[in-house]
Amino acid sequence: MSSTYGENIKISVFGESHGGGIGVVIDGLPAGETIDFDAVLTQMARRAPGRDKTATPRRESDLPQVLSGLLGNTLTGAPLCAVIQNTNTRSGDYGNLLDCPRPAHSDYTAYIKYKGANDIRGGGHFSGRLTAPLVFAGAVCRQLLNKRGVRIAAHIASIGAARDSRFCPTAIDADLMDRLSRSSFALIDETAEEAIRAEVERARLDGDSVGGTVECAVTGLPAGIGEPMFDGAEGAIAKIIFGIPAVKGLEFGAGFDLAAMRGSEANDAFRYADGRVVTETNHCGGILGGITDGMPLIFRAAFKPTPSIAQEQRTVNLQTGANTTLTVKGRHDPCIVPRAVPVVEAAAAVALADLMKGSGI
Amino acid sequence: MSSTYGENIKISVFGESHGGGIGVVIDGLPAGETIDFDAVLTQMARRAPGRDKTATPRRESDLPQVLSGLLGNTLTGAPLCAVIQNTNTRSGDYGNLLDCPRPAHSDYTAYIKYKGANDIRGGGHFSGRLTAPLVFAGAVCRQLLNKRGVRIAAHIASIGAARDSRFCPTAIDADLMDRLSRSSFALIDETAEEAIRAEVERARLDGDSVGGTVECAVTGLPAGIGEPMFDGAEGAIAKIIFGIPAVKGLEFGAGFDLAAMRGSEANDAFRYADGRVVTETNHCGGILGGITDGMPLIFRAAFKPTPSIAQEQRTVNLQTGANTTLTVKGRHDPCIVPRAVPVVEAAAAVALADLMKGSGI
Amino acid sequence: MSSTYGENIKISVFGESHGGGIGVVIDGLPAGETIDFDAVLTQMARRAPGRDKTATPRRESDLPQVLSGLLGNTLTGAPLCAVIQNTNTRSGDYGNLLDCPRPAHSDYTAYIKYKGANDIRGGGHFSGRLTAPLVFAGAVCRQLLNKRGVRIAAHIASIGAARDSRFCPTAIDADLMDRLSRSSFALIDETAEEAIRAEVERARLDGDSVGGTVECAVTGLPAGIGEPMFDGAEGAIAKIIFGIPAVKGLEFGAGFDLAAMRGSEANDAFRYADGRVVTETNHCGGILGGITDGMPLIFRAAFKPTPSIAQEQRTVNLQTGANTTLTVKGRHDPCIVPRAVPVVEAAAAVALADLMKGSGI
Amino acid sequence: MSSTYGENIKISVFGESHGGGIGVVIDGLPAGETIDFDAVLTQMARRAPGRDKTATPRRESDLPQVLSGLLGNTLTGAPLCAVIQNTNTRSGDYGNLLDCPRPAHSDYTAYIKYKGANDIRGGGHFSGRLTAPLVFAGAVCRQLLNKRGVRIAAHIASIGAARDSRFCPTAIDADLMDRLSRSSFALIDETAEEAIRAEVERARLDGDSVGGTVECAVTGLPAGIGEPMFDGAEGAIAKIIFGIPAVKGLEFGAGFDLAAMRGSEANDAFRYADGRVVTETNHCGGILGGITDGMPLIFRAAFKPTPSIAQEQRTVNLQTGANTTLTVKGRHDPCIVPRAVPVVEAAAAVALADLMKGSGI
Repeated sequence: MSSTYGENIKISVFGESHGGGIGVVIDGLPAGETIDFDAVLTQMARRAPGRDKTATPRRESDLPQVLSGLLGNTLTGAPLCAVIQNTNTRSGDYGNLLDCPRPAHSDYTAYIKYKGANDIRGGGHFSGRLTAPLVFAGAVCRQLLNKRGVRIAAHIASIGAARDSRFCPTAIDADLMDRLSRSSFALIDETAEEAIRAEVERARLDGDSVGGTVECAVTGLPAGIGEPMFDGAEGAIAKIIFGIPAVKGLEFGAGFDLAAMRGSEANDAFRYADGRVVTETNHCGGILGGITDGMPLIFRAAFKPTPSIAQEQRTVNLQTGANTTLTVKGRHDPCIVPRAVPVVEAAAAVALADLMKGSGI
Repeated sequence: MSSTYGENIKISVFGESHGGGIGVVIDGLPAGETIDFDAVLTQMARRAPGRDKTATPRRESDLPQVLSGLLGNTLTGAPLCAVIQNTNTRSGDYGNLLDCPRPAHSDYTAYIKYKGANDIRGGGHFSGRLTAPLVFAGAVCRQLLNKRGVRIAAHIASIGAARDSRFCPTAIDADLMDRLSRSSFALIDETAEEAIRAEVERARLDGDSVGGTVECAVTGLPAGIGEPMFDGAEGAIAKIIFGIPAVKGLEFGAGFDLAAMRGSEANDAFRYADGRVVTETNHCGGILGGITDGMPLIFRAAFKPTPSIAQEQRTVNLQTGANTTLTVKGRHDPCIVPRAVPVVEAAAAVALADLMKGSGI
Repeated sequence: MSSTYGENIKISVFGESHGGGIGVVIDGLPAGETIDFDAVLTQMARRAPGRDKTATPRRESDLPQVLSGLLGNTLTGAPLCAVIQNTNTRSGDYGNLLDCPRPAHSDYTAYIKYKGANDIRGGGHFSGRLTAPLVFAGAVCRQLLNKRGVRIAAHIASIGAARDSRFCPTAIDADLMDRLSRSSFALIDETAEEAIRAEVERARLDGDSVGGTVECAVTGLPAGIGEPMFDGAEGAIAKIIFGIPAVKGLEFGAGFDLAAMRGSEANDAFRYADGRVVTETNHCGGILGGITDGMPLIFRAAFKPTPSIAQEQRTVNLQTGANTTLTVKGRHDPCIVPRAVPVVEAAAAVALADLMKGSGI
Repeated sequence: MSSTYGENIKISVFGESHGGGIGVVIDGLPAGETIDFDAVLTQMARRAPGRDKTATPRRESDLPQVLSGLLGNTLTGAPLCAVIQNTNTRSGDYGNLLDCPRPAHSDYTAYIKYKGANDIRGGGHFSGRLTAPLVFAGAVCRQLLNKRGVRIAAHIASIGAARDSRFCPTAIDADLMDRLSRSSFALIDETAEEAIRAEVERARLDGDSVGGTVECAVTGLPAGIGEPMFDGAEGAIAKIIFGIPAVKGLEFGAGFDLAAMRGSEANDAFRYADGRVVTETNHCGGILGGITDGMPLIFRAAFKPTPSIAQEQRTVNLQTGANTTLTVKGRHDPCIVPRAVPVVEAAAAVALADLMKGSGI
């Protein structure tokens, strides 16, 4: 029904790419906890464009103005509202009337749903720019989780055919988590960077784009988070991750590989280690029956290639009713996966802060 | 927070495997529409166990008793409640105190979350048996959708290494949809049946189990269904699909394959065909920006192998605090994928009926 | 959208007066707490008809069957579902097609809303009988509250022109609370009983009915329950109290009398008493800014007279389009206020259990 | 859980009296409808302080800046966000640490709930100033309703002992509705103005404040709006009306007077008039069974006196634990009822726009 998420900590995201501003209201945050605002800005900067060649050369200040909910650096308990003004917009790159929907964008479906009234400039409310308020919300929620011993980090698992290593599912180093969660080109195996950047650069030189996957890990979660059936941890995370533009797949633990396994291989045996119950393997990704089991929660999201490419594409002219072609103008990322890493982390942080509050933890 | 789903058509699923009964309340159904109850029972029968060798030999009558919301065969507008009594339960197969959690089951996480008070017999509220009320709800919603020209069908896309054909993403035959949506071992390519059954049989003979994937298609959806961001069609479907026990992955359209594609390949070009806007390919699975585009909506869900296997497994004894082993008794499906097909269809039906009502269609 | 209530503890009420059964699903109850089922039945009996001359002579067994969520007397954490079978129904008292809507009943509005498909027998889903599942839910929630030191009791504040005493707003005796919460004709001043019964009897002898008010007090609530603005304690209670058929007014503390007061009179001064902050008066009814202040929470609900009276009334014939008259047959309470007392208590219990869980208390 | 309201049209109100700004996000508005922004500002001006002697002499610009959801004067379908900057704040009037809670304010309860972290300046999130965004949201929703033939107007029904006439419940003149809905001191009987203003002036001269009631009518509603039980029209309106600071009572139709009536008097007889079903009287306030019956929907809300008065009051010092006295400084309305009139209308507009969308109308 809406751009809202959450039961216990609720976020409501607003804004359009070329309107007055974008932002988020976060309702249900715990009064009295302090927020490190510099750490919030660090997360915003990871998502912001223009940091390297894989990203669009646009410059957005993306500086959030907090209107309410924070007094000094302390949460007041009132809804936290942050606004990011839209400043660097070049609307001339876009027409105002939708003639030709860009393939793989929301242009056509939004045109139908909103009867042609939606703001098409820059994708309007469907712009990837709307992930900035999500990163803001996630940066706040992440700090709440950190204080409870929970760490969240993601990395570029693959771009095109180039791959990073995967998280070790049963033991993830705290230093690795910290390094990734501050990186702007997050990789577990930093020797993979050259091959991955090469995939993006080849796409860029071809006037094309390329997709990829992001893998995210959450460590330090207690067992017992999540609800049965439709509010299980997988479903709660899925609802917000699929809210990130371009995500078309999501898997937990061994995910799709489990479909080809035998139970004797897939089942994670329980063991005591240092008096705690752990599992020897972690094919389930830290979630059993929708509820966390205390092992690292691990998932991977698949991103389709950026729809905007420099090549001519076939489309229709909705005003004339004729088939035609289109060349998308404007400045676009050849690959959004590096910038999607902090967005995935943020979405996970919002989902888990909501679930943990719901579980009374 | 709960075993509830939906904004406009809401379902609340209740029951435990070995309690008095299980069922569902469906709130928000349109008064005055007629329901073909035999067609509902047909769907229930597709999910029921004991129909062939891939399933457990248990017999559950699974006959739903409607307590309210239906007068004759007409929806009254009041909440529709259906109850299925639990009759054929052999509690002796299970202990009453949780000593040793079964690997890959919810035993351990439910024990932690519910402080040992949950009913562990048969998995309690986490039992796959709780998908019976979901199939009931889906069978009702499916009929509402059918009257609006929407068809839903799924098939066994793979079990272990054996595969069925995939749906043609741009044109799915109505007869195929009808055939699949009534089948109890649903395959597009019926010549694949022997290989697929052989995978299951091999697992069964090994005292093991095997996973698989289910592919689901929805045809006849108008463009414009779904909301931006977190209530997009992908997120809405994901929330309910991940509510099905054993699902660990979900992808729409080309899904994870998109992560390796270039935009020039992945983007679905728009064309006019018979005066309608269509796409030449359907890598996006019929959803752009969270909103349906009028093409078939296609997704695949990955199911892990049935956790209950006859082989000895390593686990812990929560009462003694020692590592131990466990051999799961009771009767279990070596593969739940064939029976999961109608469950996936039902979940899709509930999600889409809810979204369509929300979209005012 | 529905017959559901609650954010943290959710109830979904189903059933129709003359259908198969009625009941409730309660989602979000805390696992491991014990329920005294006899105490639940005591509450159900207080609402049941046929206990004295103020009530209809119908006999309903109203015996709830628990289908899930309770193992022995312990909550399992799964949704708690209770069903009450409909047995003693005399449908012949009612036609099946709505010709002439009964004045002040939901007949006409339900006919319009549900396009004539609603079950009109006995009022269908709008029957006062649907308060039985609400009393069940309230009886469970009340026990959770009791364990946290919270007590709920209501009484017949007035019927027609006859009045009971009001609660002392600043100090309510625990024995009085206990006595009222078990009474089937609950009065603070038992000497008022004769006058109040006389009002009902006069209405009955006249083939008429009479309205009244119920006053409810909640003691032992900690300060800090409730949320700002739309989820304040008043709003949360109002939403469920107005869900009780026949309620047309609700006031907290001094309520409508506050409208004629000066601030210097209305403001409740703070004082320390035994180291606790209290107020000298309690015109605000224990709620400031939507949040409890630790004083007794007090509200009054106004009930209109039972719409069904033996006298001839003017109405329309919806089938012929003509004005006509109607004499309502069947057995009806001349005054539902005595039986509404446990319903009001139950509604308050559900609302406060939900709010307390949301406040993490 | 929060400062949010609505199922189909959702509002999320944010801000604190002396923070950066206040505002609202409205989600679910219909794309393509035009908004008369001047008419929105007219409603905002009715609520703004400083217009006459009954109000505080503070000047707030209260000019809303729309950040998203509106392109030109057309709704885009994206969440509509409006922000009002806080400019004219004199924080020196208030201390920063809560020593002595003001009687009848939320100071004490917010202090407990938010552990002393809430922004107490001007009441923070509990300030009456937060009704400005609600008026904004209502002004937008009102226009949607107007286009569907629905009109909303309220008036000062009483202040202290002085009273205006009441709405004729069965026939309300359209010109009266229009006049009231633009008035800044709304009265049906304008000859009552002198007596009503005199009540306020007497309170002001006494350094005191006075309460009152607001009566609201909604005309042109079709029959069939509202849901059974907890989402009935009364409950939906109650939840938002009790979200307005200082409201302590609410009644529909004859309200509390119904409690003293006989059924033969209270029941509204149905009649055909010009081929439409109407009722001869309207004691039910246009709502039967929670569903509108097509007659005017009428309710009255009771407002307590403004808590801030110039007289010395008894309170406690939370830092020293001693009883003490307090004289509230700052500028305050001796009566907020005149300014509450547009707030009540706005709340009704939001509730009914939400209900109508939910009813598919």
